[in-house]
Amino acid sequence: MVEIGALSVGIKLGILGLGTVGTGTVEVLLDGAGRHPLLSEVEIYRVGVRTLDKPRQVQLPDRLVTNDLEAIVTDPQVDIIVELIGGVEPARSLILQAIQCGKHIVTANKAVISRFWDEIFTAANKAGVYVMLEAAVGGGIPVIRPLKQSLNVNRIKTVIGIVNGTTNYILTRMQREGSNFDEVLADAQSLGYAEADPTADVDGLDAADKIAILASLAFDGRIKLEDVYCEGIRQVSKTDIAYAEKLGFVIKLLAIAKQDNDTSLSVRVHPTLVPREHPLANINGVYNAILVEGEPIGQVMFFGAGAGAGATASAVSSDILNLVAELKISPQNPNPLLTCRFHSFSKIAPIEELFTRFYARFLTRDQPGVIGKLGTCFGEYDVSLESVVQTGFQGELAEIVVVTHNVREGDFRQALSQIESLDAIDSIPSLFRVL
Amino acid sequence: MVEIGALSVGIKLGILGLGTVGTGTVEVLLDGAGRHPLLSEVEIYRVGVRTLDKPRQVQLPDRLVTNDLEAIVTDPQVDIIVELIGGVEPARSLILQAIQCGKHIVTANKAVISRFWDEIFTAANKAGVYVMLEAAVGGGIPVIRPLKQSLNVNRIKTVIGIVNGTTNYILTRMQREGSNFDEVLADAQSLGYAEADPTADVDGLDAADKIAILASLAFDGRIKLEDVYCEGIRQVSKTDIAYAEKLGFVIKLLAIAKQDNDTSLSVRVHPTLVPREHPLANINGVYNAILVEGEPIGQVMFFGAGAGAGATASAVSSDILNLVAELKISPQNPNPLLTCRFHSFSKIAPIEELFTRFYARFLTRDQPGVIGKLGTCFGEYDVSLESVVQTGFQGELAEIVVVTHNVREGDFRQALSQIESLDAIDSIPSLFRVL
Repeated sequence: MVEIGALSVGIKLGILGLGTVGTGTVEVLLDGAGRHPLLSEVEIYRVGVRTLDKPRQVQLPDRLVTNDLEAIVTDPQVDIIVELIGGVEPARSLILQAIQCGKHIVTANKAVISRFWDEIFTAANKAGVYVMLEAAVGGGIPVIRPLKQSLNVNRIKTVIGIVNGTTNYILTRMQREGSNFDEVLADAQSLGYAEADPTADVDGLDAADKIAILASLAFDGRIKLEDVYCEGIRQVSKTDIAYAEKLGFVIKLLAIAKQDNDTSLSVRVHPTLVPREHPLANINGVYNAILVEGEPIGQVMFFGAGAGAGATASAVSSDILNLVAELKISPQNPNPLLTCRFHSFSKIAPIEELFTRFYARFLTRDQPGVIGKLGTCFGEYDVSLESVVQTGFQGELAEIVVVTHNVREGDFRQALSQIESLDAIDSIPSLFRVL
Repeated sequence: MVEIGALSVGIKLGILGLGTVGTGTVEVLLDGAGRHPLLSEVEIYRVGVRTLDKPRQVQLPDRLVTNDLEAIVTDPQVDIIVELIGGVEPARSLILQAIQCGKHIVTANKAVISRFWDEIFTAANKAGVYVMLEAAVGGGIPVIRPLKQSLNVNRIKTVIGIVNGTTNYILTRMQREGSNFDEVLADAQSLGYAEADPTADVDGLDAADKIAILASLAFDGRIKLEDVYCEGIRQVSKTDIAYAEKLGFVIKLLAIAKQDNDTSLSVRVHPTLVPREHPLANINGVYNAILVEGEPIGQVMFFGAGAGAGATASAVSSDILNLVAELKISPQNPNPLLTCRFHSFSKIAPIEELFTRFYARFLTRDQPGVIGKLGTCFGEYDVSLESVVQTGFQGELAEIVVVTHNVREGDFRQALSQIESLDAIDSIPSLFRVL
């Protein structure tokens, strides 16, 4: 499809979707001055939309715009399909159909990639086409390409990300204002920082999609999304944020993939107490950041706007630019750093096998020896404690905050269930992992 | 030189230099498990050292090691020269000779690249070879490749870096301990964080080399190193750090390249007051970070260890890996995103034309109306003030700290020289730009 010869022939794009990101991408492509000159070899050949008569921010000739998306993905003239419609279907089917027709793919669709990595990359490898997905994680932040091309000379040990701007915005405001979750969420919704149905963000599902993708690339194995442990931020209270701060921590929703030992990975999303001096502790508001630790590089972190038309359009356009460069120099042999070279699934350890520190808050009846009883229960399950502080009273109940050393989560849970049955214990209102 | 056929033929490296970075790189290449499998197609074919009988951390067969560096760069078997000897000569001559012999170059040498960009890339383009330099700026942090492959769909507006670990370490300790420059420098030298001759670091020369390279890539024009304005950190005092902190700033040595208008850039290194909430304000110790602002991406930042064997070896190895990938798929046509496509020099504005905020500290004789006199002088030269604070006394002298709005540096300097001649003014101990 790509003809490189004496006459430089443009690479033809079929863009699916003309929402925020699609519009941003078209704007970049139509306004090339001051950008890389290779972008001028890109031709917006077709744009697929759901509704033809909607008013648009960008003006495109009528003949380019169609609501027959299938006609675009099967059009023999099209070289690259840029999928920006989002959601699982029809995006997945269109991507697969395009691959079968030999088109290269650029997508911002974390939901499809995290769920159908196996199906999509198996098809892409068979068809000899690229599937580029820089925009699927971290908005404009270059992180997918660095993982593929810069960091994979390292043995990656950990990928830790703040990859959801909505929850980071909510937690930052809760921390700064001393507010509770519900109030800040409502305000964030009215300001447009959170969706009317905030589930995907606040329950950590969006972050789970993203860490599944990052973990696949960092650890060279496909990830089953159902293996990603996921807790959202609904149970984070202003009380815990305040205690965490006193102990030297901030609470962040982290997406973590960590090589625990030679044979298994942990991949998880949960609110986490982050030490104040940690690079991720200062990532505030809607910003995203992804920290990668490897050998021999040590720590590197990538920071920027994790969403928005401009940032995401930058990532999409850079994927298009890289495809143009590769197709120009080598239309037949794909660049081995840009294709998916691994075929097996990573083995993910169940959350019980995780070793981590914990923070737990207990409400106890003010009986003599209650701290001793807690200590005894933890001791029986090999849970050693870093600190135990009686922080005050809530009415008649004494409040005790415990931070453990690194312990096996299964052991910690068993100790907790025994502690819950103690007479002296009223309740355990909160429980967080500590980085 | 690169033969790709039925038999996969290894890419042969000639590595010049087996110091810290050379040793780190050889260790990565010899120990490939858990790294990208394409690294296995790399062969360490020759290693050039100054002294043959020095004890080494890595064991290499005697036949690979030679002190005849010229023989390596002219050896027809060698595909890639990895230049890790540092310094200007003989590095420059060896690189140029290697290019003339058709070798691709991987280098960590900021001094050679910043001074001889024009000569080296003119030769490389003529010979059709790559010159890769990820390791020249920011140690292991992927920043050169993101600029070339991810960010250049943007119109870059600003590149701001903390690119020298030694000065950032010194400033961080001065700030945390309330110490003066000389004490911290002496301690940093004894701990190995600063060189016995600290000039290149503390006078900003190392940072100037690096921002010249970053600015070339970000703004698509070669930079004359002598056009880079450069001030070091010797004049930063604990007094100013403390005042800056009260005003909501930290003092950092920033390397800045900024598109001031369509026709000219400012490229400069100087201590700068950075607002506490700015992403660069929290980059402490020996860490480096590079912040890029562009349209439409907004801000992105890259953070990590800016030096050290492991980090730098990661960058060098990733350049080698990328060359192997490109040479494998397309030995003849170079990837246009990885070659140097611009040939002219950027026009750099003289520092007098800079528009910036300033912080200045004055010691004044405590005469009535001295603040009024300052204000009048500044007003005459169109320098408008954001704040004027009498901060206290130093002996008989009153101390006044001024922060300006954005003003033209030339105007500010003229106002200052008039102020210096006032009877009421004893001295102007410090003067910094404000981000």
